[in-house]
Amino acid sequence: MEFKDLISFSPSWTNAQGEFAEIVFSSRVRLARNLAQFKFPLKAKKEELKEIFNLVKNCMASIPGEKLVFPLLSLRPLDKEFLVERHFISRQFFKNRDGKGIGIWKEENLAIIINEEDHLRIQALTAGLSLTKAHKLANRLDNDISKKLPYAFSSQFGYLTSCPTNTGTGLRTSVLIHLPGLVHSGKIRKVIERLGQVGFSVRGFYGEGQEVEGNFFQISNQTTLGRKEEEIVDGLHKTVIQVVEYETRARELLLKNAEIQLEDKIWRAYAILKSARLLSTKEFINLSSAVRLGVGLGILKKVSLKTLNELLIFTQPAHLQKITGHPMEPAERDTRRASYVRQKL
Amino acid sequence: MEFKDLISFSPSWTNAQGEFAEIVFSSRVRLARNLAQFKFPLKAKKEELKEIFNLVKNCMASIPGEKLVFPLLSLRPLDKEFLVERHFISRQFFKNRDGKGIGIWKEENLAIIINEEDHLRIQALTAGLSLTKAHKLANRLDNDISKKLPYAFSSQFGYLTSCPTNTGTGLRTSVLIHLPGLVHSGKIRKVIERLGQVGFSVRGFYGEGQEVEGNFFQISNQTTLGRKEEEIVDGLHKTVIQVVEYETRARELLLKNAEIQLEDKIWRAYAILKSARLLSTKEFINLSSAVRLGVGLGILKKVSLKTLNELLIFTQPAHLQKITGHPMEPAERDTRRASYVRQKL
Repeated sequence: MEFKDLISFSPSWTNAQGEFAEIVFSSRVRLARNLAQFKFPLKAKKEELKEIFNLVKNCMASIPGEKLVFPLLSLRPLDKEFLVERHFISRQFFKNRDGKGIGIWKEENLAIIINEEDHLRIQALTAGLSLTKAHKLANRLDNDISKKLPYAFSSQFGYLTSCPTNTGTGLRTSVLIHLPGLVHSGKIRKVIERLGQVGFSVRGFYGEGQEVEGNFFQISNQTTLGRKEEEIVDGLHKTVIQVVEYETRARELLLKNAEIQLEDKIWRAYAILKSARLLSTKEFINLSSAVRLGVGLGILKKVSLKTLNELLIFTQPAHLQKITGHPMEPAERDTRRASYVRQKL
Repeated sequence: MEFKDLISFSPSWTNAQGEFAEIVFSSRVRLARNLAQFKFPLKAKKEELKEIFNLVKNCMASIPGEKLVFPLLSLRPLDKEFLVERHFISRQFFKNRDGKGIGIWKEENLAIIINEEDHLRIQALTAGLSLTKAHKLANRLDNDISKKLPYAFSSQFGYLTSCPTNTGTGLRTSVLIHLPGLVHSGKIRKVIERLGQVGFSVRGFYGEGQEVEGNFFQISNQTTLGRKEEEIVDGLHKTVIQVVEYETRARELLLKNAEIQLEDKIWRAYAILKSARLLSTKEFINLSSAVRLGVGLGILKKVSLKTLNELLIFTQPAHLQKITGHPMEPAERDTRRASYVRQKL
């Protein structure tokens, strides 16, 4: 497997196989770990960071599965954007690049981010609501690594991390969830508020500033210290099930009170996606949100959720440019995006 | 033929058979005539108007062709709206209804409006740019009637009419023309101005006030006194050919400068018409304008101009209610309109 091959595959977490897949796009578990004999990345010298990268790389080689490890410095700007779009890293990761690196397993359900805030960030990403599965995947990798590389661990605090909010289990878990029912009915604000009160953070996933594009939200746990890993994962799982129930009820109400308006919106969105010759990322995300709702409500029977999931990833700017094989200005991308979407739908 | 049968037929002037049918929807010639021995309708008494109505009715019976004559008083409000939508009469005709009536030939290419401003308004309506054909049709009917009913005619002024602007030939001729190219390129204002300077009036056909819906315009002659009928008809014909040329050039330029934007707009409009569950008259007119342009430019190959013409007539409020067989509120009409359009496209 080479880096350039990544564009040819759909990540396994887009396969729409998990529980409540029409509402919950994906589940994520991330473990923050640091190596016992080294300073935290922000304090470490360049040579130390390189040593850590190489240690992790060698360690990964002894772990099963087809995979790829590469330093951030080896990547072109487009490839870095591609990794952001692929949900591996955030743009913050681009800063102070020395010694940073990424390890990716072929199915893309597992990745290791090297020398970001912590020496290791073990990430598992799975389809639908499947936090336990993601947790198991991350745990297994964590165990495999811990056998070769001793972690910074305190019997009092647990895993030691660069930022104290991660100390303890070092676990952060989240879901990417589609909540058009709660948005359209105006109930989303209250739901976000309540979740905040019980220790969960909710933020719009697409869109800038106050705007939430496509009604996608990320719900994650806020605290980790003093709780068991299973407790945290199970807590989010139960909370998400409740949010899914709220969302389902909101959709039923919408359908009851404004069926024809809803159907109109959904059928128009689908028709435009199948016909437009120009599509911005923003418009695509919003139209595909309506189509996704239509699939969830059983109104659009011919559209597969998997295709919608894949389109959300592959219509992003860097993905489109990698598919096409050359850099493109936004106007050209809008044309290419439209033709790509037409072809896939 | 009965009045209720009219809803089952498409008027022959929607068949898109005439010259430049993708730009010129229809051609119209109207002759204003008054009977020699009677006062103009505005001055005549009720009994006189009824006598005129009966004279015309009897006269029509002796003229070939399947047809229908009825007094305005016999019509329900919905039927009157239907006749307006069918381009037979204007809403002004509803006022002071005594003695007023309408005669309609089966193909709807010929009609006589009785006791409006003049005793007789002979109207011929044909598809595409076909003013000579419309003129011939109107002329033949005019001759047939004049053999039975002596007209008010002055050897000095010509045909005498209630309003002096019609005196002379009594002829008014017009076309209904689709000018999206001139509208989008911003050249329409100048074209309207120029046409005004050479004696033609241009007004938006759909839409209220300043808004012109669907880029449809009506171009008509303004003067009739002192000119021969053929001259007037030929004058408009030549002018329309020129406007068609301007429009064609404007379309070519649009296609050259903004091909992808234009294609995007056209494909989206077509997709929405084929998919929407709610469609207002205004939105239908505007979307169908884009689709019509797409047909004219050869972008949409599967859509027939005849279907688009028929839809413009049959999606109007009174038509929809007559098709459905019961009165409908606007919201219900929007649903019915959308399903009707989906079915026809």
